[in-house]
Amino acid sequence: MPSSDYIVDHELSDDDENVHHVWDNGIDPAVTVEPGDVVRFECRDALNGQVGPDGTLEDLINVDLAPVHPLTGPVRVEGAEPGDVLAVELLDFEHKGWGFTGFLPGEMGLGLLPEDFEEGGLHVWELEDDTAEFVNGIEIPLDPFPGIIGVAPGEEGEHDTLPPRDVGGNVDVKHMTTGSTVYLPVEVEGALFSTGDCHAAQGDGEVSVTGVEAPMFVTARFDVLKDKSIEQPELETTGPFTPTGADEPMYATTGIAADLMVATKKAIRHMINHLESERDLTRGEAYILCSAAVDLKISQVVDAPNWTVTAYLPESIFP
Amino acid sequence: MPSSDYIVDHELSDDDENVHHVWDNGIDPAVTVEPGDVVRFECRDALNGQVGPDGTLEDLINVDLAPVHPLTGPVRVEGAEPGDVLAVELLDFEHKGWGFTGFLPGEMGLGLLPEDFEEGGLHVWELEDDTAEFVNGIEIPLDPFPGIIGVAPGEEGEHDTLPPRDVGGNVDVKHMTTGSTVYLPVEVEGALFSTGDCHAAQGDGEVSVTGVEAPMFVTARFDVLKDKSIEQPELETTGPFTPTGADEPMYATTGIAADLMVATKKAIRHMINHLESERDLTRGEAYILCSAAVDLKISQVVDAPNWTVTAYLPESIFP
Repeated sequence: MPSSDYIVDHELSDDDENVHHVWDNGIDPAVTVEPGDVVRFECRDALNGQVGPDGTLEDLINVDLAPVHPLTGPVRVEGAEPGDVLAVELLDFEHKGWGFTGFLPGEMGLGLLPEDFEEGGLHVWELEDDTAEFVNGIEIPLDPFPGIIGVAPGEEGEHDTLPPRDVGGNVDVKHMTTGSTVYLPVEVEGALFSTGDCHAAQGDGEVSVTGVEAPMFVTARFDVLKDKSIEQPELETTGPFTPTGADEPMYATTGIAADLMVATKKAIRHMINHLESERDLTRGEAYILCSAAVDLKISQVVDAPNWTVTAYLPESIFP
Repeated sequence: MPSSDYIVDHELSDDDENVHHVWDNGIDPAVTVEPGDVVRFECRDALNGQVGPDGTLEDLINVDLAPVHPLTGPVRVEGAEPGDVLAVELLDFEHKGWGFTGFLPGEMGLGLLPEDFEEGGLHVWELEDDTAEFVNGIEIPLDPFPGIIGVAPGEEGEHDTLPPRDVGGNVDVKHMTTGSTVYLPVEVEGALFSTGDCHAAQGDGEVSVTGVEAPMFVTARFDVLKDKSIEQPELETTGPFTPTGADEPMYATTGIAADLMVATKKAIRHMINHLESERDLTRGEAYILCSAAVDLKISQVVDAPNWTVTAYLPESIFP
């Protein structure tokens, strides 16, 4: 919900002049702002509109990855210097009423479980203010956040937007919601901040490689901190940590293995089994639901040689 | 808190006759119970009393690992057969007023960050009903659970208690609290259930390899499910998912790296830096606090080649 105690100082539309598709500290700033200024960003969806509100699985499979991810910015912040920290207070998110979550056929090799799926899947969501409906009457809560939030890397040249880095980028931290403050380590003068790839919701893990991908407006206030030093992004947040904001029933599956990635795959496979047998979902639907609403926690990473990763499904999303 | 609608059918003390130190399906049952029966287990602490309420770091460093972990059981459950699921309803936990959290010098190679610490550390806690005090007025919430909960492996012979397995064991899932039901895949006739290594509290991750280790009474009801099939432990839980049971302020650090274990180490190192610089803790105290009260989440495991692991510190534990 929009918080009322700020005035937007700058608007950045998602027109081509304000959008870039790689990280590169040589890209000209779209705008220069003072510390304390508020900027409202219009952000395209992660796939640059190639899967729209009437999109199909065919659209997803034939997607051109060149324009992925479109980012709005960069914003040059006066006074920010390498070694400083850019504080980004997230004031508001406004989606445009639709989003999608999908996965690609395994041969394309993306996501946590490409080896489990020969065909892809897609769900296009109609987004209400706070919820969105899946299949079988399942309704997931929405808590929008920017999948990508970062500043330009110090290293010159073009950098792919898919992996996150020390300066942030595609961190996909779902708790960067309204009211949160994100701290980013500045590597170049002016910081050169950009954001995009917004998600209306996501499970911790984003296992199918898409959250609820949605074009969105993002409103943020910037500040430059000279007395703070960090190596990678940090944040202050109030969650939400559960869909209802309170302790509530969850069903959880464990993944136990000698490698954290294998343990993670096991936890999600067990959850897909559970959703198939107990909740009457197809395996593809279950995979999409895991990506949108199931949270991965590292229960222990010390009981050698086997670690425990646990996947949590909120029961409140079911009718 | 004890729930009142059950009667204890069997009591198992922590006398030697009811305690074993390896998993082995050849160990004679301490008791045989019917489905529906309630058993109250007295459980020794993980180190079998070698670090007591007046324990020192010296005690921890000189610990004899042979009796680790002492487990109470096994309980043979009538009618449980390989392929069934044992349902364990956790009814109550009662600690004995004290516990400890520590870490060993790095040369001993245990825990997430042995390479960061040349010396070990120990904190002995005085446990109240719901909280325990650390240093600097920090008070952590208590939500007891069994670090180890499992049934005997089908494979014959002795199995170390440190790593968890398909049948459970040292899973260290902190959400197995009062009111939760844990599901375990049965591999031998009678299931042969044991528990122990109780923690009065723990962060997701248990990074220093100890939670708040505490001797405890555990009360549980058993049932045998013939129509459920699982590969590794699963559970129903209501958390708590935050210390106060509601959304509340957290400080979070990210760890971004191409390997999940490296990302996990980074997230915790950044949190230790934060606790040292912002909360005036020594690095050893910070490591202990992370193990007792900081939660690790997998934010994304799909933005190749770099993953994001995030560590969450509840602000409400500070005075």
